Amino acid sequence: MAREKGSEKRQRILEAALKVFAERGFYNAKVSEVARAAGVADGTIYLYFENKEDLLIQLFEDRMDFIITRLNEELAVCGPGADEQLRRMIAMHLNLAVQQPDLAEFITVELRQSARFVREYENPRFVEYLRILRDIVERGQKEGVVRAGLDSRLIVRAIFGALDEVLLTLTLASRSRSVDVQLAANQLADLFLEGVG
Amino acid sequence: MAREKGSEKRQRILEAALKVFAERGFYNAKVSEVARAAGVADGTIYLYFENKEDLLIQLFEDRMDFIITRLNEELAVCGPGADEQLRRMIAMHLNLAVQQPDLAEFITVELRQSARFVREYENPRFVEYLRILRDIVERGQKEGVVRAGLDSRLIVRAIFGALDEVLLTLTLASRSRSVDVQLAANQLADLFLEGVG
Repeated sequence: MAREKGSEKRQRILEAALKVFAERGFYNAKVSEVARAAGVADGTIYLYFENKEDLLIQLFEDRMDFIITRLNEELAVCGPGADEQLRRMIAMHLNLAVQQPDLAEFITVELRQSARFVREYENPRFVEYLRILRDIVERGQKEGVVRAGLDSRLIVRAIFGALDEVLLTLTLASRSRSVDVQLAANQLADLFLEGVG
Repeated sequence: MAREKGSEKRQRILEAALKVFAERGFYNAKVSEVARAAGVADGTIYLYFENKEDLLIQLFEDRMDFIITRLNEELAVCGPGADEQLRRMIAMHLNLAVQQPDLAEFITVELRQSARFVREYENPRFVEYLRILRDIVERGQKEGVVRAGLDSRLIVRAIFGALDEVLLTLTLASRSRSVDVQLAANQLADLFLEGVG
């Protein structure tokens, strides 16, 4: 009930948490610091979130909902070919480094510091993200732009791992110098499209 | 001084730490559990290691020394071509999933839960590992098996990210079923060699 009524306050707490986690690191960040940054009393946080780990997971789900919604919108308008869609997905993933660096750092660094997130959480949003990528790869196999003999699950993990690592390095680099995300996205897209073709 | 004299005891503590971290997770693991598993008194641990984070970092450095030594030995005998060496490096990286699953899980999961490791540690061994991979890619550019226009730093990060993610999934999968590491290594090597060629 509180969640529906206080959805704006909940969003404000999530925004504050993203900022505090990025600045202080998840491990060092305190719930009281998130409360202060959000302009709410410490106890208010616990109306919406069980504890710091729950705040991290709900923040992740909230942002992944946003990312997946935008991705699906972009894929719907960028043309139906699997090669074009893979290019688009790679570009969107890496663009996070400059468009939303706090979120990119949260996803590539902070999330992994939560034992609960890594070991116990089923992570349906991540599964959904991989599913979108797998649909593209398997469609590519039907269209003949991806070799039929390739294990699509393996290729999807390889592409995701490469994107995640490159997003991390671009995000950290972008804090100190300008980075050419489009060039990186083009080189990776070329690499994977020629590699799987 | 204590380190030189007690190098066997230190190794026993590192072995125990690897096992305890894999079983309990780095975050949950206690120094006293490592002491018990190593058959030493709690205080003995602190003769060799400052704290749990220091134990994690020294364990990582110790194992990376071993991995890098073996890798250099294998690369020295597998033939001088960059393509063959990249294949060998990919196979060795993924083989860790079945040859040393505790170590593979430590590298892909536990390490990242340490805030100090992720945020503050310079990580010279990881830099060295990437450097070996980069030498291969740049040699490939001279030999003409890797396109000259590709950014070798970017490609190295992409390959490492893919290997790391696939190692994680193979390691977790190998706990419950048999996995075909060689097939995965061949498919990834084909993907990257055709992708960069």
